[in-house]
Amino acid sequence: MTDAPLVIVFDVNETLSDMSPLAAWFEEVGAARLLAATWFAGVLRDGFALTAAGSSAPFADIASESLREQLRGVDLARPLSEAVEHIMDGFAGLALHSDVAEAVRRLRASGFRLVTLSNGSTGVAQRLLSTADIGDEFEMLLSVEDAAGWKPLRAAYEYAATACSVDAGDMLLVAVHPWDIDGASRAGLRTAWINRGGDAYPGYFRAPDLVLASIGELEAHLRRE
Amino acid sequence: MTDAPLVIVFDVNETLSDMSPLAAWFEEVGAARLLAATWFAGVLRDGFALTAAGSSAPFADIASESLREQLRGVDLARPLSEAVEHIMDGFAGLALHSDVAEAVRRLRASGFRLVTLSNGSTGVAQRLLSTADIGDEFEMLLSVEDAAGWKPLRAAYEYAATACSVDAGDMLLVAVHPWDIDGASRAGLRTAWINRGGDAYPGYFRAPDLVLASIGELEAHLRRE
Repeated sequence: MTDAPLVIVFDVNETLSDMSPLAAWFEEVGAARLLAATWFAGVLRDGFALTAAGSSAPFADIASESLREQLRGVDLARPLSEAVEHIMDGFAGLALHSDVAEAVRRLRASGFRLVTLSNGSTGVAQRLLSTADIGDEFEMLLSVEDAAGWKPLRAAYEYAATACSVDAGDMLLVAVHPWDIDGASRAGLRTAWINRGGDAYPGYFRAPDLVLASIGELEAHLRRE
Repeated sequence: MTDAPLVIVFDVNETLSDMSPLAAWFEEVGAARLLAATWFAGVLRDGFALTAAGSSAPFADIASESLREQLRGVDLARPLSEAVEHIMDGFAGLALHSDVAEAVRRLRASGFRLVTLSNGSTGVAQRLLSTADIGDEFEMLLSVEDAAGWKPLRAAYEYAATACSVDAGDMLLVAVHPWDIDGASRAGLRTAWINRGGDAYPGYFRAPDLVLASIGELEAHLRRE
């Protein structure tokens, strides 16, 4: 990257929030731990399907209804409604990854404008960030609920650029999900892929501009430019 | 439905092919049976993401690369490349559901035009149908590889209508996946959801015109009209 970005756009679910406790909550209600990943992939699959078909639905609606359907065939340790509620409550109350809070404060102190752009609701992001006392570091918390569809639709990123009054090229998207990097890149944003687990990046998606093992590495990379 | 459809459009993966052996193949290479569903949901998630972002990639490319990535962290019973090959070979050689062959012959004998429209390749559909000796019942085997993106993109269904020289409203899409029913409905097709497992239909997707427990029930429904 040749220019420092004016606005850093953070994805929320799994990029800022630590979703690893999810598997334990599935186990607590009597479901297999591995179902957590299946469920989350299915939520994105269905949200992306609606977006590809020109429509949309709230993340929480798809998440809770598909969770109910997925748990329906499982021999649960508690009634189905309570199991769904237990996992959805947990999801809404996730904590930040350990590398986030300090990194966010340093980026803000260095003068970068910070926003979030989530396929989930603004409320979930608000709760996540204010619980960790970093809500004030962000200029805006944006949700695709106010855009034409979910990320990775081009219009979702353009909505964020418009909200921030900058060109897409003056934004840097920070995300753990390759599909988000790909969509942001196609929309003209610069991109930083956070790869905490040492995963391989899929060759069928556009490559990120930066690959970092944690958000903590971001500020040093941007300062060097 | 008030008019019998001129063209019946069958989805292929899981609608015609029986994917239940997949779990056993995961187990044979030393992976958890449940990973089969996680993998398939992730393949669709990534394919839909590319489609939503205005791009596309071949199903087999996404399937094999994401399978490799998913198995990379597993303590496998054989080398990674062989494990990927074992499951992909199995996927390419799936058999039909037991309700398909006879139902297809009866529909064709009743005068309906039959085609397939798959997010996978035409080759996989060709092998699936010719192995069961029903390849000749189909007028065309269509793949989104020749369209602007994967189903449920509107243009994917419109591509099929153009290929068949009919209006979208003169086609009936037959599929097990609610996202396919939703997309086809938005594109103006009539729809039949095959619900072999007694699942609940997601409220966030457009409802099907017909709900059937098997493809075998389709001809009686259409004849009655």
